[in-house]
Amino acid sequence: MTRGTTRGTVTERVNGDVPLWSAGEAAGRIDADATVGVSGFGSVGYPKAVPLALADAERDLSLTVVSGGSVGEEIDTALVEADAIERRYPFQARPEIRELINEGRVAFHDRHISSLGDEVAYGRLADLDVALIEAVAVGEGWLVPSTSVGHTPTYVEQADELLVEVNDAQPLGLQVLHDLYRREAPPDREPIPLTRPDERIGPGRTRFDPSKLVGVVRTDRPDTPYSFRAPGETERAISDNLAAFLAEELDRNPILAERVHLQFGVGSIGNAMVEVIDTVDFGDRAVHYLGEVLQDGLLDLLAAGQVESASATSLALSADGQDRLFENLDAYAPDIVLRPASVSNSAEVVDRFGVVGVNSALSVDVYGNVNSTHLGGTHVVNGIGGSADFSRNCPLAIVALPSRTDGGTPRVVPMVTHVDHTEHDVDVIVTEQGLADLRGLSPRERAERMVAACAHPDDRDDLRAYLDRAGRTGGNLPHDLDFAFDWR
Amino acid sequence: MTRGTTRGTVTERVNGDVPLWSAGEAAGRIDADATVGVSGFGSVGYPKAVPLALADAERDLSLTVVSGGSVGEEIDTALVEADAIERRYPFQARPEIRELINEGRVAFHDRHISSLGDEVAYGRLADLDVALIEAVAVGEGWLVPSTSVGHTPTYVEQADELLVEVNDAQPLGLQVLHDLYRREAPPDREPIPLTRPDERIGPGRTRFDPSKLVGVVRTDRPDTPYSFRAPGETERAISDNLAAFLAEELDRNPILAERVHLQFGVGSIGNAMVEVIDTVDFGDRAVHYLGEVLQDGLLDLLAAGQVESASATSLALSADGQDRLFENLDAYAPDIVLRPASVSNSAEVVDRFGVVGVNSALSVDVYGNVNSTHLGGTHVVNGIGGSADFSRNCPLAIVALPSRTDGGTPRVVPMVTHVDHTEHDVDVIVTEQGLADLRGLSPRERAERMVAACAHPDDRDDLRAYLDRAGRTGGNLPHDLDFAFDWR
Repeated sequence: MTRGTTRGTVTERVNGDVPLWSAGEAAGRIDADATVGVSGFGSVGYPKAVPLALADAERDLSLTVVSGGSVGEEIDTALVEADAIERRYPFQARPEIRELINEGRVAFHDRHISSLGDEVAYGRLADLDVALIEAVAVGEGWLVPSTSVGHTPTYVEQADELLVEVNDAQPLGLQVLHDLYRREAPPDREPIPLTRPDERIGPGRTRFDPSKLVGVVRTDRPDTPYSFRAPGETERAISDNLAAFLAEELDRNPILAERVHLQFGVGSIGNAMVEVIDTVDFGDRAVHYLGEVLQDGLLDLLAAGQVESASATSLALSADGQDRLFENLDAYAPDIVLRPASVSNSAEVVDRFGVVGVNSALSVDVYGNVNSTHLGGTHVVNGIGGSADFSRNCPLAIVALPSRTDGGTPRVVPMVTHVDHTEHDVDVIVTEQGLADLRGLSPRERAERMVAACAHPDDRDDLRAYLDRAGRTGGNLPHDLDFAFDWR
Repeated sequence: MTRGTTRGTVTERVNGDVPLWSAGEAAGRIDADATVGVSGFGSVGYPKAVPLALADAERDLSLTVVSGGSVGEEIDTALVEADAIERRYPFQARPEIRELINEGRVAFHDRHISSLGDEVAYGRLADLDVALIEAVAVGEGWLVPSTSVGHTPTYVEQADELLVEVNDAQPLGLQVLHDLYRREAPPDREPIPLTRPDERIGPGRTRFDPSKLVGVVRTDRPDTPYSFRAPGETERAISDNLAAFLAEELDRNPILAERVHLQFGVGSIGNAMVEVIDTVDFGDRAVHYLGEVLQDGLLDLLAAGQVESASATSLALSADGQDRLFENLDAYAPDIVLRPASVSNSAEVVDRFGVVGVNSALSVDVYGNVNSTHLGGTHVVNGIGGSADFSRNCPLAIVALPSRTDGGTPRVVPMVTHVDHTEHDVDVIVTEQGLADLRGLSPRERAERMVAACAHPDDRDDLRAYLDRAGRTGGNLPHDLDFAFDWR
C-alpha cells in the first residue's frame, strides 16, 4: 500500500497565482446555452455558489448539466426554478427537476455511472464547455475534490474551461481520502492496478492544464446532503432475511471463504441493509465495503473495526453523518478511500474482488427482472445510477425491497413495466416476507419461488391466478400479454 | 507476444497411459441423473460419440447438461428425442430442445456467457458430476480442446470425473490456436494480462488431475455446425447503413483513431455484417476482431490481411468454412486465437480494447430496449449468449436487425415484450431503413429518431399514433400500458 504517502500535504485553500472571482463573475463566464460538467455525487461535493448566482442572474439560460451523480438543491432545485436547465444527465434526486423531466420539459437520460466519464470523453453524450468543480483546495494546475469524486477528473480534462469553487465548509483534511487514478482511453487502456480494496493507486490531486482555469470562487456553504429514513419494521425484516441468507452463503461459497467485499445501494433501504454486517457472524473473515457511496450506517462499523475498509466515489452521508466524519476525520481517514466512479464502479474491480452487491428497486417481477427507475414504466424517480454496474458484474447480485409500497401496491409483479436489470443479472431477491435464491432456476421455477417466498401474502393468489392463465400461452417464460400489467 | 512458443508440440492423439473406452462404456459411467458439463460452443467442438451412446442406451435418464454455448444434434436433438435431458444451460440452437423448453418439459435458463464458468465454479448454477470434453489430443493430466473452448477449462476443473472424446475428424493442428488462460477466483483474481488483442497469455493445453480421467473415447465424427443464410437485400441494406455510420465514427471517435476492435454476434445477420469491414475505408488503422465466435465472413478478410487478427472462443464456421480453415490451417493459425469464454467475453477485455460490438435482435423498442431471446415475450429462441457481455461493456454497442420479420411483423415496436439489453446499454440501432444514433438522447428524442430512421415506413403512422396516445400519460418515457403490446 502507498497509503497516504503523497497526501495530506496541502495546508492552504488557495495556492499560487490563481484568479479569484466572485460567484457572479464566474456565473457570467458561462454561456447561456453552455454544457456544464459539475462535480457532485450522492448529493455532496457539488458546486453551490456559482449555480445560485446563475439562478439569480435573471438570464435566459438553457444549460446542459452533466454531474457525476445526484447534486443538491443549488442545482437541481434553484436552477430548475429559474428555468435554466434544458438537458440533464445522468441522475437526479430532487422533486423539482424530476417534475420537469416527467413533463418532458427537461431532456434527461439516466446513464450507468461506471461508463459515464467515458461517454463524456468519447461517447458523444455531451461536449463540455465548462467544468464547474467544488474543491477543498486549488493551485496552479491542480485541485483536491471535496466530499465526492464522481467523474470530476474526466470533466476537468474534457472541458474547455474550468471554474473551481473552493469551499471552506468542507474540511481540508478530506484531501487524505482521495485516490484519483485516471484510466487511459481504449484501446491503450491498462488493467486497473488495484490488488487490495483499500489500496491507493493514484494521486491525491487532479491535475489540469493551468491555462484552463478561468476563475476560483470562495464559498463556505455546506452540502445539502441526503436524509435517511430510520429503518422501520419492514426494513428490519428484510435485513434479517438477508442476514440469514448471507450466513448460509458464507459457509458454501468459496469466494467468501476468507474475505468478504460488500456493496449497498444508495438510499434508505441500502443504508438499512448495512445492519446485516452487524448481525452476521463473519468469523475470521475481513469485511471490506467496495461500493459507490459511503452512507451513515458504515461509520459505526468502521469505527468498531467490523468493516476494515470502505471505498466509494462519494461520502453520501446525512448532515449528522458528515458531522461525525468531519469531527473524527483523522481516525476514519486510514480506512476510507474516495475514487473516481470509473474505478469504484468498474466492471473490472467489481468482478475482481467478487463483490456481493445489495441494491434496492421499485419493483421486481416473478422472473427476476427489476425496475429501479420508472414508476408505472413512465415516470422516472432518480435514475439507474450505479446499481447495474454492480448487479451486472457481481458474482452475487441481491435485490432488496419491500413486497408492497406503503400504500399497499404490490412490488412483486408478473411483469415489471420497465426493466433496468434483467433476469440474467439478478441472483437473489429479498423482501420482508422472505428470500428467493434464483440461481440455477428456470423461469417457471423462479416464478413459483418468488410468489411463495417474496410476494406479500395478500398478493399470492392473484399472482398464481396470473401464472395459471399465462401457463396456457406456454413458453419458457409464460406470460399473457393482455393481462401482464392488469393482473389484479 | 509469446505466440506459439509452447504450442504445436503434440504429435499423437493419445499420449501416455490413459484408459481407452468404447462410447458405450463411457456412457455407462454417467449416472442417470448426472449433471454433465460438456464442451461445445457455436455448434462446434462438443462431444458426439458418448451422447449418441447415451441416447441409444434405452436408459431412463434425467440429465442436467451444461455446455459452453450451442452444441450439435448429437446432444440437443438425439438426447432430447431420447427424453434424456431434464435441465439445460445456457444456450441452445436446435428446434427439438427448443420445443421441449417452451413446453416447460426441459428446465432452461439462458445465462451470460462471460460469467457462466464462474457460476458453475461458485454460483450454485450446477454441481458437475462429469465433464465430457471433445479434444484433439489427450495425455496424462492434459488435453487440447478442438474447435471451441467455451468453459471447458472450468468444467474440467470443477467436475468430479472426466471423460474425453478424442476426435480424429478435428485436425491436430488446431492445437496452435488455443490460449487457455485460467482466471483465479475472486477475491484473489488478477487482472487479465492481455495487452494486445492477438496476444497469447496462457498455455495451449488444459491441465487436470490425472486421477479424474476415467475414460478416453476415440471418434471421427465431424461437427454438425451452423449453416448461414446468404445475405439478402435486407442484410445488405443494413450492412450499408452500418458502414456509412462507421465511416463517420472513425473520423470523430478518439478511441478509433489508430486501431479498431470489432465484434459481430453469432448468426446470419452477424455473419452478413462482417461485410462492413470490406466496405469501410479504415485508412491506416489496424482492424482486429475481438469477439465470441469466429464466423465464415472473417476468413476471407483474414486471408486478405484486412483483419489483422481474430480471437474468439469458438470457430463457429459452416461446414464449408471449416473445410477452408482446416485446409489452410498453417496459414491462418498465426492470426487466430481461441480463448476461454471467461476471457473472450470478459467485461474487462471488452472495455479495455474499446470493442465496437454489433449484435442482432428479435425486436427493439423505440426507447432502445432490446429483445434478443423470447418471441412474444414467452417463447425462447436460443438464449442471450454473449450478446450482453459485449453490449453492456462496449463503448459503442450497435444492434442490427431488419425493421420487420419476413412475415411482415414489425421488429421496431413501442415496448419490447422481453428485455435482454436495456436502454442504458445500447448506443446505436440500425435497420435496412436507416440508423438511429441514440447517444445523448432523452427517451422522447429516442422514440422520434427510431420511428423516423429505423421503423418500416408502413409502421411509422401506427408508432406515432401510439406515441401520441402515450404522451398523454406523460413521464420521462411515455407509455400507455393498455396498448403497449397492442398498438397496431
